Amino acid sequence: MMTKQIYKPRPITGFPEWLPEVRLIEQRWMDHIRRVFESYGFCSIETPSVEEIDVLRAKGEVDKEIYVIERLHKDENDNGESRLALHFDQTVPLARYVAQHFNELDFPFKRYQMQKVWRGERPQAGRFREFYQCDIDVIGVDNVPLHFDSELAAIMVDILRGLNIGPFQMQISNRKILMGLCAGLGIEDPAPITRAVDKIEKIGETETKKLLIESGLNDDKATIILKFATIKTQDSSFVEQVLALGVSHETLAQGLAELASVMNQLTHIEKGFVLADLSIVRGLDYYTGTVYETKLLENTDFGSICSGGRYDDLAGSYINKHLPGVGISIGLSRLFEYMRINNKLEIGAKCPTDILVCLPSEDKRDEAAQTARQLRERGFNVELYHTYQKIKKQMAYAEKKAIPFVWFPPFEDGQPHEIKNMQTGEQTSADPQTWEK
Amino acid sequence: MMTKQIYKPRPITGFPEWLPEVRLIEQRWMDHIRRVFESYGFCSIETPSVEEIDVLRAKGEVDKEIYVIERLHKDENDNGESRLALHFDQTVPLARYVAQHFNELDFPFKRYQMQKVWRGERPQAGRFREFYQCDIDVIGVDNVPLHFDSELAAIMVDILRGLNIGPFQMQISNRKILMGLCAGLGIEDPAPITRAVDKIEKIGETETKKLLIESGLNDDKATIILKFATIKTQDSSFVEQVLALGVSHETLAQGLAELASVMNQLTHIEKGFVLADLSIVRGLDYYTGTVYETKLLENTDFGSICSGGRYDDLAGSYINKHLPGVGISIGLSRLFEYMRINNKLEIGAKCPTDILVCLPSEDKRDEAAQTARQLRERGFNVELYHTYQKIKKQMAYAEKKAIPFVWFPPFEDGQPHEIKNMQTGEQTSADPQTWEK
Repeated sequence: MMTKQIYKPRPITGFPEWLPEVRLIEQRWMDHIRRVFESYGFCSIETPSVEEIDVLRAKGEVDKEIYVIERLHKDENDNGESRLALHFDQTVPLARYVAQHFNELDFPFKRYQMQKVWRGERPQAGRFREFYQCDIDVIGVDNVPLHFDSELAAIMVDILRGLNIGPFQMQISNRKILMGLCAGLGIEDPAPITRAVDKIEKIGETETKKLLIESGLNDDKATIILKFATIKTQDSSFVEQVLALGVSHETLAQGLAELASVMNQLTHIEKGFVLADLSIVRGLDYYTGTVYETKLLENTDFGSICSGGRYDDLAGSYINKHLPGVGISIGLSRLFEYMRINNKLEIGAKCPTDILVCLPSEDKRDEAAQTARQLRERGFNVELYHTYQKIKKQMAYAEKKAIPFVWFPPFEDGQPHEIKNMQTGEQTSADPQTWEK
Repeated sequence: MMTKQIYKPRPITGFPEWLPEVRLIEQRWMDHIRRVFESYGFCSIETPSVEEIDVLRAKGEVDKEIYVIERLHKDENDNGESRLALHFDQTVPLARYVAQHFNELDFPFKRYQMQKVWRGERPQAGRFREFYQCDIDVIGVDNVPLHFDSELAAIMVDILRGLNIGPFQMQISNRKILMGLCAGLGIEDPAPITRAVDKIEKIGETETKKLLIESGLNDDKATIILKFATIKTQDSSFVEQVLALGVSHETLAQGLAELASVMNQLTHIEKGFVLADLSIVRGLDYYTGTVYETKLLENTDFGSICSGGRYDDLAGSYINKHLPGVGISIGLSRLFEYMRINNKLEIGAKCPTDILVCLPSEDKRDEAAQTARQLRERGFNVELYHTYQKIKKQMAYAEKKAIPFVWFPPFEDGQPHEIKNMQTGEQTSADPQTWEK
């Protein structure tokens, strides 16, 4: 062998990569999420990894940390083409997709999307530059039935319960309630009030009240806002509590009715998973009705693992239609990484194999291969051991890869097949046509 | 509404995007491919979308049309980091992955990988710049059992038969046979011979013979090579035909034995899907043993849909280990697009929904929602119609989305549930706890 220059590769900060045993669990997560989305009839779309920079610019999104792509070997033809950037979320791509294919889609358009997105962030702990997001949205023409606001919450609770991430709680509110409350109190600019309410979980009631007073409220109004922001109920009883504040406004009444309807549609869910929490705000601009956040109860500082809400105008930058929607998103990679570094993933098998079929001898290869095929046709994942070696060595291979069963085809004609459960050590005779786990 | 500037989005050449009904089929394809890979015990890995340009350079691969990525808003810190490029295949990433995680992997390492890859090609018809590839490889330390050369062929035949792509044929050869034949004939430089043999399918025997003569062979030797290149057998009988050429060489004998062994392991596959075809070469450098190509019999001009082979050194650029392997790859997007533009995809449903549950009235929402949940828990994909509207309108929704069943919960208490098969028009009473398709 020639002596060669070796370039020792290193991990690239912010671009995660898993060993097979971790990837197996990531696949299980993604399968589960997809299964739940589809069980509610949502269709999958996949958009290209890139969008034109002009598309991002039209939606006013070029301030984000985006990655542009360029051919390494450029030539004069490249100048004629639009610049492309890797997408940094799945909302801009959805808006562009709906606008571009508007005439070919059925509305309400119920889609899910599970793709990688990229953000050119400065590297720091726990921040990925490439990660999976799982988004689900319903887009309507001119309106989206309120039904979907509760359906999306139910879907996400179904999903999160299936991921074994420990106790969590989804908090739901409706932006119209706070907007209506401010209007009813004669507050002209609700922005600083919203910002103060948004912070209550972090800074506490005393500090929040200070912020409210600083923003120009008198003590009575600040007290009302503060009372409002601490209302949390597991059912629709928040309505009475808000009404007891003695403020009335049409938008407030509408928000209360909407959130009450959403909560009433979620009563089939076991207590504790869903909470009407009127301090939930989700930023200032985008959302106009229902808003969702979800926290891990064991670590509320981790921030929301699943968020979203109702918005009024998805794609106005790309098409002259009024397309409101409601959507919710799981930051899959972020949550997965959290569970991984906290050793909460149940890491086990290193491959999807159910059964290793041993090779009794090179002479018996055809029979062993046939056994493997029979088991495979019956739906099992089956490896045939590749080369005749001592059975001990073949067993060691199964053990190392944590394969749960080892199959022994007859070593001599007329003998029965046998199967060994590697966990219990139990070994029994078995028929490849009828054996069950 | 304010008048807004609208930016009408256009498709980006080379970056495919499907409507939901096409995406559904793409998902079905990918699920099937994954299922077969896993049924043979292969594990999934996923690598980042990018590699360091230095990693590509170490393997000598920077001449390809690669896309580099750069942060749109660069700052002085960017200079300290390696330049990154989107991967253009899954072989360089596999090599880098195996080198980087060598001590944590089990060998033979059986992995599959189904990711998007990117090539910054000049746009032209049928050429994608972003596309899916499905790769499967077995990597060994110092050697890879010949068992896998036949296993990979069997896997790919299983996969392609399940995709409904019409008749196809996998052609298999072994590079050692032609190398050994050249050596046995005293030909010092086999490169021009290999190139000529590679062209026989395209240019025919007469032109191939001309090329052989031009490359310096005398008529006898050219005739032998030509005879060799036309040998095609459905079993291992090619061995006799090659021996009848009267040339002998150790490498030739080894290649014949290997290919015979591979063909003998594939006799369980129905006749016609696999052919030993000694004209198959697959380029000049990389492959050192078994080589595979696969053609669509209805359009042999389309080129190979599934190719690969055995190579001697996967990751020598990154690690001081001898890691030979055998691998095979389907150009999924290319094949899918071919089937799509030739109207060979069975496009039907626009969503994964099995059953639309009608809403008999707003008063009956809870009962209808419960019915939907019961059916969902039993494994069906179920949409609840969102808002009370005339039943005709609800049915029209199911029809437009090609949902196969519509469920009617009782309109009045005491009445039975009913279900309508939208294809046959048959409507029967049914119980959400027991109904089966």
